[in-house]
Amino acid sequence: MTRGYQLIVEVDVYICAAGINCGTRGRILFDNTSGRFVCVHGCFFIYLHQNQLTFVRFALYLPVRITMSVKSRLPEFLEKCERERDRAVDFWLQNSHDTEHGGFFVCLDRDGKVYDDTKYCWLQGRQVWMYCRLYNEVEKYHRQDVLQAAIAGGEFLMKHVRDPTTMKCSFAVTRDGRTVKVQRQPFSEVFYFLGLSELYRATGEAKYREEALKMMDQLVHWMTVDDSGLGRPKWPGAPDTDNMAVPMMLMCMIDQLEMMDSTLTDKYAGLAERCVEQLLLHIQRDGTVILEQVSPDGQELPGSLGRLQNPGHAIECSWFLLQYAVKHNRPDLKKTAINNFLLQPFESGWDDKHGGLFYFLDVDGYSPTQLEWNMKLWWPHNEALIAFLVAYKETKDEQMLEKFAKVFDYSFSHFVDPDHGEWYGYLSQQGEVTQRFKGGPFKGCFHVPRCLHMCTQILRELVTT
Amino acid sequence: MTRGYQLIVEVDVYICAAGINCGTRGRILFDNTSGRFVCVHGCFFIYLHQNQLTFVRFALYLPVRITMSVKSRLPEFLEKCERERDRAVDFWLQNSHDTEHGGFFVCLDRDGKVYDDTKYCWLQGRQVWMYCRLYNEVEKYHRQDVLQAAIAGGEFLMKHVRDPTTMKCSFAVTRDGRTVKVQRQPFSEVFYFLGLSELYRATGEAKYREEALKMMDQLVHWMTVDDSGLGRPKWPGAPDTDNMAVPMMLMCMIDQLEMMDSTLTDKYAGLAERCVEQLLLHIQRDGTVILEQVSPDGQELPGSLGRLQNPGHAIECSWFLLQYAVKHNRPDLKKTAINNFLLQPFESGWDDKHGGLFYFLDVDGYSPTQLEWNMKLWWPHNEALIAFLVAYKETKDEQMLEKFAKVFDYSFSHFVDPDHGEWYGYLSQQGEVTQRFKGGPFKGCFHVPRCLHMCTQILRELVTT
Repeated sequence: MTRGYQLIVEVDVYICAAGINCGTRGRILFDNTSGRFVCVHGCFFIYLHQNQLTFVRFALYLPVRITMSVKSRLPEFLEKCERERDRAVDFWLQNSHDTEHGGFFVCLDRDGKVYDDTKYCWLQGRQVWMYCRLYNEVEKYHRQDVLQAAIAGGEFLMKHVRDPTTMKCSFAVTRDGRTVKVQRQPFSEVFYFLGLSELYRATGEAKYREEALKMMDQLVHWMTVDDSGLGRPKWPGAPDTDNMAVPMMLMCMIDQLEMMDSTLTDKYAGLAERCVEQLLLHIQRDGTVILEQVSPDGQELPGSLGRLQNPGHAIECSWFLLQYAVKHNRPDLKKTAINNFLLQPFESGWDDKHGGLFYFLDVDGYSPTQLEWNMKLWWPHNEALIAFLVAYKETKDEQMLEKFAKVFDYSFSHFVDPDHGEWYGYLSQQGEVTQRFKGGPFKGCFHVPRCLHMCTQILRELVTT
Repeated sequence: MTRGYQLIVEVDVYICAAGINCGTRGRILFDNTSGRFVCVHGCFFIYLHQNQLTFVRFALYLPVRITMSVKSRLPEFLEKCERERDRAVDFWLQNSHDTEHGGFFVCLDRDGKVYDDTKYCWLQGRQVWMYCRLYNEVEKYHRQDVLQAAIAGGEFLMKHVRDPTTMKCSFAVTRDGRTVKVQRQPFSEVFYFLGLSELYRATGEAKYREEALKMMDQLVHWMTVDDSGLGRPKWPGAPDTDNMAVPMMLMCMIDQLEMMDSTLTDKYAGLAERCVEQLLLHIQRDGTVILEQVSPDGQELPGSLGRLQNPGHAIECSWFLLQYAVKHNRPDLKKTAINNFLLQPFESGWDDKHGGLFYFLDVDGYSPTQLEWNMKLWWPHNEALIAFLVAYKETKDEQMLEKFAKVFDYSFSHFVDPDHGEWYGYLSQQGEVTQRFKGGPFKGCFHVPRCLHMCTQILRELVTT
């Protein structure tokens, strides 16, 4: 199907009354991207007694929802997701490889031009993971150029990004690998683990497996036993918090580990279960909201920090939990994942006026202190696409597919760049592109291709069954 | 003068030709806030031969600039600046005092309600400074309640914010003074110094003077000799940078110190001169731009960091340099301050489409990576008001007053809240309020009252001479 308005019916209505023939002749058009608005235009005509013909032209836009099933759009979704995935992957393949030092340029302008050669390390690990996942799962990417770029990225990570003594990873390094910045959060390390683990799956090389397992052990130690190695000072007034990111990342890592080596499932089963329990603590206010930070025993924290909502993050969590619930046959958890982590955050996080998901909200309606709270970022929309499609696949509830379509239509009409691949990352509340680059310190080859790859897989399954 | 449209002239024009009397009778109105638009309305009349009178009503809006001298607006500027200063100061006097623990609540909603009781320490020091400056210089604030609140703030700073051993100050503390966060930049310490120094000027209490001098010595040591006490790791890939903030803060501190004790002028004269030299290194690209970060020897740095412009910061720097140039009778420096640090950054930083100053720009036109780059923040407008007024006072060049008027009109129509005192701090590019609060982690009782206090002082001088 092509995009835009399409003719569906020609109208010819005659009425004959009191010797006058009259009626309308015209067309009814509808918008095939949303199925929502009908435009009627044509002419009204009257045959008068004297056989004179009078025409009156008219155009009428009717806000009528055509109640066609959203299921009929599945082939369109599939075709567009796959095409956009390939445009995104091509963008990175063509523009991001540092053939001299290995690793990837991530600061790429709209057209792929490098505007800063600093290598942000979350994105180095993520791109290795993404390339390997595509190599492992998609026939057209099962190619040597993809694998070689991933290996060069993995080697760069091991040689330059990870400190061999402390296992801490840099947050940013120069093009040739000298450390620019180190964070006191263990995020670079998580993506280091993910990249090397999937690289092992792609290559079968034992050294990547060993490196991944070593980092996994270190991360589990930092996240669950003792985080003093991260160098974060403990201040007497800083509240103990449970940040949703930590159990989410652990769940994601365990899932990756099981794909790498299913014999490790039992070893991490208890930890995965504790992560789920920790995530459920974030359901607050009688089950009506997800709060990003709570106390370790599940109490709401005071002030702006305690009231913070990050709808995209809760929605991302929903599909982690949903997949876990399906895998372990836990219908209650499945319900919680969909109702509490997906539907509620989506309803409160969606901007009814301009469309799109807000980045942050304050649960009591104060202004968030984050200046970018009202911007529309690409990744919450990626997470919502995955989440609604997984939810639809697991429930066959058409409501899920309708919400998928809502996010799909917003995303494909706002984030997609028709001229160059990859999505824009940052829009104003009104939906205008505020940052024209495709890659930056926090946006690389990850959310867009991961989302579109997963959606393509699920949609193909839905279309063919 | 009251705000809005005001009648300036009644028109009565008669033309008599070919026996017909005709003409117009009406009013010409103009907008006294901008002096820009003329509205003509009234009636057109014709006396016909038969003495019948015909009226045709009309209203005509003409985009005509009245070429009245902007100097005629000086009394208006004065009246509005003083009124807004008092509304801002009242807002903090009424809503921010923690009478139990001392210090100030800074997270205040639009109407003054505390939405978070965390005490951000830049703002504790700044509010002590502001209260004392007003107490010292403005008769109506030379009151015990103002002084007592400042003393309670100063005591809170000494007791809870500054580590007596390391002299490091917290960035944020709990309401009762327990540390929540410490920055590895020496900014809290600068405002600690400013607060206690001005508190000494207000009270004459030796302990505040000693504390201020001790912190001054420590800051000079960190900023010019050895910054290892700040705890910032040195990474091999991180470029040595000269951040404009450091010499600017030092100049500001030296200026404050001289007000506190003029016998210290000689001690810091050399340092002040070195600060000026350092600031001049930020003039780049053949004198056409000010870059926020350069190498210590004045070379442009690679990447986004090197290309970063912060127009409001350059404009703030212009009035620091201009005051220094006037004080030391340096006509060349005066010219540089106005041309390079004020006019150029103002021209490139002003948003011609929506008005207001951008927060960040990339000198090569790439998108800044700061998500908030296109927002309009209150403080660059405060700095521009001060800078253009100081420049006008020192040059009597009406161009400076015209630009002052441009910033004044934007600021007073966008940042002012007619219902509650203090300005909004954060607007979208289009000029809509995005954060409704008046105080937050980085906005307290400082820029708005400081600007309006300084402008009131200068304007009074200009109006009365």
